[in-house]
Amino acid sequence: MKHYTAINLIKRPTDSLGPELFEVVEKPVPDLSEGEFLVRQTHMSLDPAMLGWMSPDTESYIPRVELGSVMRSSGLGEVIESNHPEYAEGDRVMGMFGWQEMAVCTGEGINKVDASLPPEMLLSIFALPGLTATQGLYSIGKPQAGETIVVSGAAGSVGSIVGQLAKADGLNVIGVVGSDAKADWIINELGFDGAVNYKTDDLGAKLNELAPKGIDVYFENTGGPIQHRVFERMNAHGRIVVCGMIADYTASEPSPGPNWMNIIRKRLHIQGFTMPDHLDKTPELLAKLTPYVQQGKIKYRSHTLKGLESAMTGLNLFFTGENQGKLIVEL
Amino acid sequence: MKHYTAINLIKRPTDSLGPELFEVVEKPVPDLSEGEFLVRQTHMSLDPAMLGWMSPDTESYIPRVELGSVMRSSGLGEVIESNHPEYAEGDRVMGMFGWQEMAVCTGEGINKVDASLPPEMLLSIFALPGLTATQGLYSIGKPQAGETIVVSGAAGSVGSIVGQLAKADGLNVIGVVGSDAKADWIINELGFDGAVNYKTDDLGAKLNELAPKGIDVYFENTGGPIQHRVFERMNAHGRIVVCGMIADYTASEPSPGPNWMNIIRKRLHIQGFTMPDHLDKTPELLAKLTPYVQQGKIKYRSHTLKGLESAMTGLNLFFTGENQGKLIVEL
Repeated sequence: MKHYTAINLIKRPTDSLGPELFEVVEKPVPDLSEGEFLVRQTHMSLDPAMLGWMSPDTESYIPRVELGSVMRSSGLGEVIESNHPEYAEGDRVMGMFGWQEMAVCTGEGINKVDASLPPEMLLSIFALPGLTATQGLYSIGKPQAGETIVVSGAAGSVGSIVGQLAKADGLNVIGVVGSDAKADWIINELGFDGAVNYKTDDLGAKLNELAPKGIDVYFENTGGPIQHRVFERMNAHGRIVVCGMIADYTASEPSPGPNWMNIIRKRLHIQGFTMPDHLDKTPELLAKLTPYVQQGKIKYRSHTLKGLESAMTGLNLFFTGENQGKLIVEL
Repeated sequence: MKHYTAINLIKRPTDSLGPELFEVVEKPVPDLSEGEFLVRQTHMSLDPAMLGWMSPDTESYIPRVELGSVMRSSGLGEVIESNHPEYAEGDRVMGMFGWQEMAVCTGEGINKVDASLPPEMLLSIFALPGLTATQGLYSIGKPQAGETIVVSGAAGSVGSIVGQLAKADGLNVIGVVGSDAKADWIINELGFDGAVNYKTDDLGAKLNELAPKGIDVYFENTGGPIQHRVFERMNAHGRIVVCGMIADYTASEPSPGPNWMNIIRKRLHIQGFTMPDHLDKTPELLAKLTPYVQQGKIKYRSHTLKGLESAMTGLNLFFTGENQGKLIVEL
């Protein structure tokens, strides 16, 4: 009997995030029932949302990964065997395959993809990052040409797309990042108008310089002190898209938010969202996003780790900020 | 030459709120130009929003009252002389007359009112409080029968109407108040399902008891610790209407707000608003509100102070919470 490798979550993260949370197991390749097909995964996506799925917090918005089961993730793969009328050997597919070399699927939640596009582009733009950026920016942020937007986590998979969409739409786009190399990348490669390095800049002074007319849209991916400095500078009728709070995912004590007085003074609209609520809008979101990509306005950078087991240490790059682009594991 | 009495704001409140902020002056009754009319004010409304108009804070959403000018307020009056084709002696009118016995008007911002309705009802329901309650509850709160709403400042002029509208719409309605007498009033007179006394109750335990299925809508009039306890109990897709933050109007140090993680987890929608942005919707809002009043579903209680000068001490009742209903000054 053939076997494949899988990685189970066995412990929830508290202070650290590494191999000690997982166990590597060998599983037998099962026989397929009618209506099933077998996928050999070629590329796995690592996303900040995974930290929420692993979290000790029982109120996470998506069901948590149960201890002892395969770690959840999205990925790309190839159909290598099929008892399903709509899937044939050789089809390229995207789905929530998890941290494993193979997955038995019924077609639910599986999308066929254009095999002519590079896997890195599929996972960096036409998957969760691009859908999340498009949904949040347009449904909540409602960007208008001439306005100013601040994007935290701007070199991240979602933030980098948000900023480029806003730039293409004629906004003044400011990205918040954690290194000068990232600042350089978002300005010189992605076309952002300015960057704030939250680790080294005087946040308030830098925002005053880059957003002299105040801030109309804030796309929040991180939390942390930058949240307060942006909040103080929001213009009347500003919109805040709350997409991620990576600074708080494993914090033992949640940091306080801004006082609400400004919400009245500025008539702010603050809205949290999670992409899984809106997956039914995928065709509509892709229709919105695709022309920007076709016109060459959305660049991406992927950071590929090699081998299934590299995922276990790869997650920690979200905290250290050492990843250079969308994290992908090539199996 | 005849004179009338007016009260000017001469100092901005920091820690206290009393006659030391004002000066009483006598002003000559001017001659009317063409297109003007003279109103003798009979009833003035005192509203929490006035604290914002007086505030040292320069970012207030409505222009502040300049030092040395008449304190701003809305009120009811009677036309006693007119050079205006559309206003005749004896007409009853509502407008922003300010803290003075008489006002010269051009008709701008003035509404004629149904003289058969009691002045207290006009100022308690069909003026700022009712418009604010209706706008906030329906445009942002989007209440659905069977849901649970928490209203802070529930015995106040806005909160009491919000709660009664929500009750009429079939919600489980919980009011937050600062005394047992107010708790008794909102439950036994207004029909709220429950009350939390923020001064004496264990807030979390009481909310758990009154809102066992969590909270869908929060109508925020006060700020303070109750905000955090409600925020923690919001249901997924909850709506928060940020209408007032009286606990923070004169606080020297703004109190921290809740951490934003719940905004994502629960996909919360938080929206601040101020009624002056929406005064063009007045006819529509009155059309929504009036049937509830006609069906006897909106009760009110007014607390009338006597004489123009009583306004100077009356404002402080918003902080002490000693007012028994909508504050009105009868001239």
